[in-house]
Amino acid sequence: MIKGDQIPDWDIQAWINTETPLSLAELRGTVVVVHAFQMLCPGCVSHGIPQAKAIHQAFPPGRLQVVGLHAVFEHHAAMGETALRAFMHEYRIRFPVGIDRPDPRGNPIPMTMQSWRLQGTPTLIILDAEGRIRLHHFGQIDDLRVGAIIGQLLTEAASASP
Amino acid sequence: MIKGDQIPDWDIQAWINTETPLSLAELRGTVVVVHAFQMLCPGCVSHGIPQAKAIHQAFPPGRLQVVGLHAVFEHHAAMGETALRAFMHEYRIRFPVGIDRPDPRGNPIPMTMQSWRLQGTPTLIILDAEGRIRLHHFGQIDDLRVGAIIGQLLTEAASASP
Amino acid sequence: MIKGDQIPDWDIQAWINTETPLSLAELRGTVVVVHAFQMLCPGCVSHGIPQAKAIHQAFPPGRLQVVGLHAVFEHHAAMGETALRAFMHEYRIRFPVGIDRPDPRGNPIPMTMQSWRLQGTPTLIILDAEGRIRLHHFGQIDDLRVGAIIGQLLTEAASASP
Amino acid sequence: MIKGDQIPDWDIQAWINTETPLSLAELRGTVVVVHAFQMLCPGCVSHGIPQAKAIHQAFPPGRLQVVGLHAVFEHHAAMGETALRAFMHEYRIRFPVGIDRPDPRGNPIPMTMQSWRLQGTPTLIILDAEGRIRLHHFGQIDDLRVGAIIGQLLTEAASASP
Repeated sequence: MIKGDQIPDWDIQAWINTETPLSLAELRGTVVVVHAFQMLCPGCVSHGIPQAKAIHQAFPPGRLQVVGLHAVFEHHAAMGETALRAFMHEYRIRFPVGIDRPDPRGNPIPMTMQSWRLQGTPTLIILDAEGRIRLHHFGQIDDLRVGAIIGQLLTEAASASP
Repeated sequence: MIKGDQIPDWDIQAWINTETPLSLAELRGTVVVVHAFQMLCPGCVSHGIPQAKAIHQAFPPGRLQVVGLHAVFEHHAAMGETALRAFMHEYRIRFPVGIDRPDPRGNPIPMTMQSWRLQGTPTLIILDAEGRIRLHHFGQIDDLRVGAIIGQLLTEAASASP
Repeated sequence: MIKGDQIPDWDIQAWINTETPLSLAELRGTVVVVHAFQMLCPGCVSHGIPQAKAIHQAFPPGRLQVVGLHAVFEHHAAMGETALRAFMHEYRIRFPVGIDRPDPRGNPIPMTMQSWRLQGTPTLIILDAEGRIRLHHFGQIDDLRVGAIIGQLLTEAASASP
Repeated sequence: MIKGDQIPDWDIQAWINTETPLSLAELRGTVVVVHAFQMLCPGCVSHGIPQAKAIHQAFPPGRLQVVGLHAVFEHHAAMGETALRAFMHEYRIRFPVGIDRPDPRGNPIPMTMQSWRLQGTPTLIILDAEGRIRLHHFGQIDDLRVGAIIGQLLTEAASASP
């Protein structure tokens, strides 16, 4: 994915923390922050998930949506839906999380991770209200920079709305 | 000071890290981040100064200016200019710092701290490119929120410029 | 368990990171540090496990033995042996870990956790070279205090040996 | 100084937080932890001083004595006694601190720092109850290792006393 591109919609097997499935099309008009993680990835647990939780708490839900993408590409037997639900309970993750769909052809990398060409976890992707990629970062990224991008996109969205 | 107000200019006895004195009038058009601190204030050393340094490094100098305000209201004998210069050398503070002018009438609170009604240190003040107060925070404040305000103000300034 | 008591041996279903099962009887003469944890317990991941790893690295293996006790009392389906092995791989846990035996009568609390009357995870237990309990702490405990107890027990053991 | 050596007594210009001057001779029988620091040394403020405070709080005063040594070898004008007293007030340092005596011959390195051959600040020195050097560490050192040495020396002292 190149910065500025539209991103294809995610391909989700099951959702947690939302009654209805989310789609990028329906989130148009909202800034979307996608945190791609695995529950047994140490960098996700120590850095990415606390950051995603902080974003979820800091910004108004109507204008920004945090979405977790559980993109399991290793240790599949250890990170199924039951395990993920226990993990999310213990770590008090309240934002919607979609389980990236396993590849039916047997590729260990799940479908969204393939189509978005994610390099690993944690990855943070931020989309503007028009659905364009404005940040795509693999690894750790500091809160100051993430906050600045969010502040920019919320301001652009506010000035664009009628 | 009330959010949205213009702020009176600082009253500075001496500047460090800048050849010419800075004024709010000349910084119009630039987002200005003022970190008010004392060199012997533990919360400034552990939180405020590292945050101000990170802001200074993260954003382009032409569009955002970090300014330190050394607002000494206690232990005056321990925090004079010589001591401050040693402190700034050891803590590698590279952005301009102005020494708030002592009150000639003997009030222990220096002049800018009085006119800006600062409650203590650390205080973070962020002004938009029009010179209006957009954040005035006493104590610790997290990077995510500070980043979001900066991102917003930089975006507003960019859309306002011809 | 009361401080100073002998502790009954653990009851382990399976061992990881050791070719032969460990027993308290055979560890007599060695200071033993038992870290009781669950892989999905946030306080274990952020505090207890890093501390146990640091102890494992800091002290000579012949005189002190770190042992993990995976004491699963909740979310049993998410924390089986396969999941634990994936977790230990990702978190680079190199010391021996025993899986506390599930209660065959269906009590969710496993056997060692019952007999040792553990209150939860993380729990740190330190035994002297005579097999007596010298520390039994539920929750976080700082490195300075843990280090001091270990230093004391190693010194006692050295002066007692012929 | 070589590990195991007796250490010459400190040469102190003034004491803070103790009514009577301390001497190594009179501290015989007590484990002594000396934290050599400068008030404007960032590594002392972020690491060494918090560690010394934690040691002071964790161990019984009758058996272990924490002593600060303010060893100023740079920025002398900024770190005099008035400044140090303000610093200690702000950072809530309650253990005795001795100001290392300036060299009357003009060497910028003070007298105790010279005779103890300190390389810089922070330096942690731990003496056993017999007054022998058991740790001499320049820079950061983790709490686990410091705790273990203290636990060892307290145990040795207890077994040696009649």
